[in-house]
Amino acid sequence: MSLPQRVRVVGAGLLGTSIALALRTRGVDVTLVDTSPVSAALAADMGAGTVASPDDEAPDVVVVAAPPDVTAAVVVAELQAWPEAVVTDVASVKTQIVEAVHRNASTDAARYVPGHPMAGRERSGAVAARSDLFYGRTWVVCTDGVDDAHVSRVVALAEATGAKVVTMSAYEHDHAVAAVSHVPQIAASLVATQLKELTEDAVNLSGQGVRDVTRIAASDPLLWTQILSGNADAILPVVERMLVELGGVRDALRAVGTSPEASAAPAQHDGAIGPRAVLARTIADGQEGQARIPGKHGAPRTAYTTVAVIIPDEPGSLGRVFTLVGDSGLSVEDLRLEHDSGVAAGLLEIDVLPVRAETLRTLFTDHGWSAHIVETN
Amino acid sequence: MSLPQRVRVVGAGLLGTSIALALRTRGVDVTLVDTSPVSAALAADMGAGTVASPDDEAPDVVVVAAPPDVTAAVVVAELQAWPEAVVTDVASVKTQIVEAVHRNASTDAARYVPGHPMAGRERSGAVAARSDLFYGRTWVVCTDGVDDAHVSRVVALAEATGAKVVTMSAYEHDHAVAAVSHVPQIAASLVATQLKELTEDAVNLSGQGVRDVTRIAASDPLLWTQILSGNADAILPVVERMLVELGGVRDALRAVGTSPEASAAPAQHDGAIGPRAVLARTIADGQEGQARIPGKHGAPRTAYTTVAVIIPDEPGSLGRVFTLVGDSGLSVEDLRLEHDSGVAAGLLEIDVLPVRAETLRTLFTDHGWSAHIVETN
Repeated sequence: MSLPQRVRVVGAGLLGTSIALALRTRGVDVTLVDTSPVSAALAADMGAGTVASPDDEAPDVVVVAAPPDVTAAVVVAELQAWPEAVVTDVASVKTQIVEAVHRNASTDAARYVPGHPMAGRERSGAVAARSDLFYGRTWVVCTDGVDDAHVSRVVALAEATGAKVVTMSAYEHDHAVAAVSHVPQIAASLVATQLKELTEDAVNLSGQGVRDVTRIAASDPLLWTQILSGNADAILPVVERMLVELGGVRDALRAVGTSPEASAAPAQHDGAIGPRAVLARTIADGQEGQARIPGKHGAPRTAYTTVAVIIPDEPGSLGRVFTLVGDSGLSVEDLRLEHDSGVAAGLLEIDVLPVRAETLRTLFTDHGWSAHIVETN
Repeated sequence: MSLPQRVRVVGAGLLGTSIALALRTRGVDVTLVDTSPVSAALAADMGAGTVASPDDEAPDVVVVAAPPDVTAAVVVAELQAWPEAVVTDVASVKTQIVEAVHRNASTDAARYVPGHPMAGRERSGAVAARSDLFYGRTWVVCTDGVDDAHVSRVVALAEATGAKVVTMSAYEHDHAVAAVSHVPQIAASLVATQLKELTEDAVNLSGQGVRDVTRIAASDPLLWTQILSGNADAILPVVERMLVELGGVRDALRAVGTSPEASAAPAQHDGAIGPRAVLARTIADGQEGQARIPGKHGAPRTAYTTVAVIIPDEPGSLGRVFTLVGDSGLSVEDLRLEHDSGVAAGLLEIDVLPVRAETLRTLFTDHGWSAHIVETN
């Protein structure tokens, strides 16, 4: 299916404007509309298209890039306004919106193709938009009950932005993002909440582990309230499971603890195994789940070897390491820079193919850096 | 207080051998002992000191680097074997060990100075040891009820490894690590556990968020069972709070959900605020807690600006970026490489001082890379 000729983008925020910018680079005619006329005009000024007017030709595709809680109503209005157009959206929850659209626009709903471009972290406003926002990102298109020709139109549009399209049902999508996005967000926020009342000395013991676990806790409360409300049905069973499992951890901690409160409490753990086994199983199950997260390209993770190098806290240190690695021509698979609180240095970990690890380590030590190969268990 | 002359290290694993190696570089006499004679001999062969023998002179300081669950017994034995020595340990939990030592070695216990070097992630064995393991890391020394002169000995030893010493009570330590280390571990493991039963398509939607949240879920079950059991009393109240808060999220999701199961359930949320406010407050509280984690040097986080550059999946791409940045002489404050599942490219985010961001972006675009300055809210 070829690229649509005329696309109408409703909502000139980060996602809508970025989609418009990407389509403009492919020569698509884009019209823009927003509840804020200034936002639409700003997006147009950035080269994302022209502000919609009553004289516009009918669009081939309408992209609804509105907040999750108004998406369904806007989709219904657009389906009715443009009886020949395919309408898609970008909301990160799908089932509730699909159901609302089918309730309110029954005959037209066959032209609605739900979508969800998974464009990294959320930032807001047309001013943050960029044409490459979706490059290499996953864009989910929901296909249940939609005509193939309509799906193809939306797939062509998504691929034109550089995204990789994955098709699945709205139900599958919502249950997948509940587990891989929404529940991790809730957990990160709850872990971070426990830091609120700590003493300064205590919070200063934070290391890389808690930093990683809580990074996404910096997310926007209003957006996440919309997302969590919009996907409540799919998130609920996962939260219920975590509550049972966390309750099991609580009971195990009570059983092994020494405080009066702890030892007074009956051990409520799973009758089949002791409290230490509950704790060990919690960590072991997590290992197993974590190992399922795919690496680059959706392929199973290759076993790379990590070389760690100490970066002194001096101007240009990292730059000198970069130059050394860059000049070596070695292919770097991944890297992490670890800071610790109260530390005047960082540790840069570089993943390379196992056969290259010794070469890289020697390269560093020959140039006076402290480097070593990290042994993994 | 000057550096100890003679140090006995009990336990030639990663931590014990690394401490021994660091002390050897400072000219300290180190003797090594381990329940496995091969481990002690291996550590000695690596230059970490000599295997202990009955003819050894008495040590000034004994470092007990045994697993958490045997540390107390070993500390007691060493206090009794060396009546002039200060004895310290490296276990990541403290109160249970302090109490056991004071129960079993009442008169000698005044010579026990509890310690906890927070040396990044756990890896195992003398073979993984290195003299710079503690460089720039925080090393907690517990001072409650210990003679100042004894504390100074251990502080001098810790600082000789390059660590930054923080003193606090065992109680403070255990409650701090419960919140900044042990509960994040439990949460990461439980989030990862939810991925175990997902379909392949679902787990392929994993993005950088769930990767970060679950990174530490790859940790060792046996070690963590020892840690969680050993600090159960301090972890328990934090887990209890999280259970209440997660229960509140569950009730809020039930109240806003549309499934029969959801709407049938009574809304059990905090009577004062509605379910959407519970969800918003969960995220907002997390924001507040996350903002307390200090940046480099324990100082408040500087507002750096992020420049993002798209790394095509071609051999040498990252290396060429490294060379460009390294040659520029720009000071890089932090960096992150983001992969998405199903993606043939990565996004490298580089944090620099705000005044340098435009220079770096232009540097990239002038050399044909797709780069942009990330707008933060």
